[in-house]
Formats: sequence, structure tokens, C-alpha cells
Amino acid sequence: MTSTNASAQQIAEDYTRAWMSGDVDQALGFLAEDVVCDAPAGRIEGLAAYRGFLEGFLPKLTGSSITKVLGDDTSAAVVYTTDTTFARDFRAMDYLTVGDGRITRVVTVFDRLPAAQARPRAEG
Amino acid sequence: MTSTNASAQQIAEDYTRAWMSGDVDQALGFLAEDVVCDAPAGRIEGLAAYRGFLEGFLPKLTGSSITKVLGDDTSAAVVYTTDTTFARDFRAMDYLTVGDGRITRVVTVFDRLPAAQARPRAEG
Repeated sequence: MTSTNASAQQIAEDYTRAWMSGDVDQALGFLAEDVVCDAPAGRIEGLAAYRGFLEGFLPKLTGSSITKVLGDDTSAAVVYTTDTTFARDFRAMDYLTVGDGRITRVVTVFDRLPAAQARPRAEG
Repeated sequence: MTSTNASAQQIAEDYTRAWMSGDVDQALGFLAEDVVCDAPAGRIEGLAAYRGFLEGFLPKLTGSSITKVLGDDTSAAVVYTTDTTFARDFRAMDYLTVGDGRITRVVTVFDRLPAAQARPRAEG
């Protein structure tokens, strides 16, 4: 799939295509055991927790598309859109840091407001 | 400030430093007259509308920091954090497309939920 010499840009693209295809195991194969992910809802630490994050998110996905992957030897930015039941062409970006051929850090940025507004108003 | 031969990466960094310094005119100088910006709250079209967007946002900013700028000849991603009265180290990313030495398209991604939650509950 990927060699330890692959650029962060290539690893980022391969990782993104893996999760977009719904293949959790393949996607996790690009991540370091002690990966740290800062997502809008908080920090996710370690591969097992990240598996839970992906397994929770991917079933909601009805479509996805990579807009652009930019990178250098040690980090990459992935610009992409997702379709879910409540939002189409929803914009998001990941900033990935790579060490020893694996993704060690993920910063995921997206807007949680559409999902919060789509939720039934249980409170109030 | 910038030549028409500057890379998208350099233009993106110079533009970001300009708005982070609070200099709206300098920041707008990097943008094309017909710039289109897709922000979480919707589309902003043209330089005059973009001025309004920046002039509304910048007074709320108490600090900011560039994490990384990645790019190629025609586009760049800026990973950054901002401090506002309601959120510190708030993560955001811009994806900028450059043509003829000016930024023609801005995709800005951030999470609107913290701001929505910080707002007094006028409804409900």
C-alpha cells in the first residue's frame, strides 16, 4: 500500500481514499499506534479510539470527494467534501503529520453546526 | 508586497499574515476583485463583500497563529488557530486558489458550534 519513503502528501491521499471507500482497516493501517487526533468535538488518542471514531462516522457518509491534497515531506492538508443525510457537499479539511511512514497526528476541521441543527431538539 | 510570480503558497502566507495583523487593506490587496469565498455561513462574492466579512470578524480576534502553509503553484492550504473572547486555540483552515497573482477563491472551514453555544439563548 505505502512504503516508509512515501511522501506525507501520498500517505495522506491514500489514507483519505481508504476511509472514503469505507475500509476502516485499510485506513487505520496508515496511522501510528499512538496517533493523536484533534477533532471539533475533542481529542481522540490511540488507534483503538480512532477506530471507534471512524466506525461511528463512516455509516453516516453517503458520498465524499477529495478537492485537493497539498503536502511536503512531513505533513499534508486534505481538502474534501462529504455528503451525509443532513448535509451535501459539506466542506472539511484534515491536517496530517507523518513520521516514520505513518500518520502520527490528525487535525480535523469541520462545522458541527449543521449536524447540531439537524438533531431533534430534545432539550429546551 | 507580492509579485505576480509568487507561488500560491507565498501569497497565501502573506495574505494570512496581513489579516492576522488586522490590516484589512493589505489583506484585500492579495484578493482578486471577483473573489469568491465559501465560508461556513455561506458564500461571499466580490471584494466589497469580503471587506465586510473581514471587518466584522477581525475585531473579535484577540490572537492568531499560523500552524502551517502548504501549497503548489495554484493553490494553498493554511492551517491556523485563532483566539477570540469565546474560544482559545480555535482551529481553522483556509484553502486558497490563486490566478494571475491574486487569490480568486477562498474556502474557509471552521466549527461554528462554539460561537453558537456562547451566544445568549434568545430563542426557545
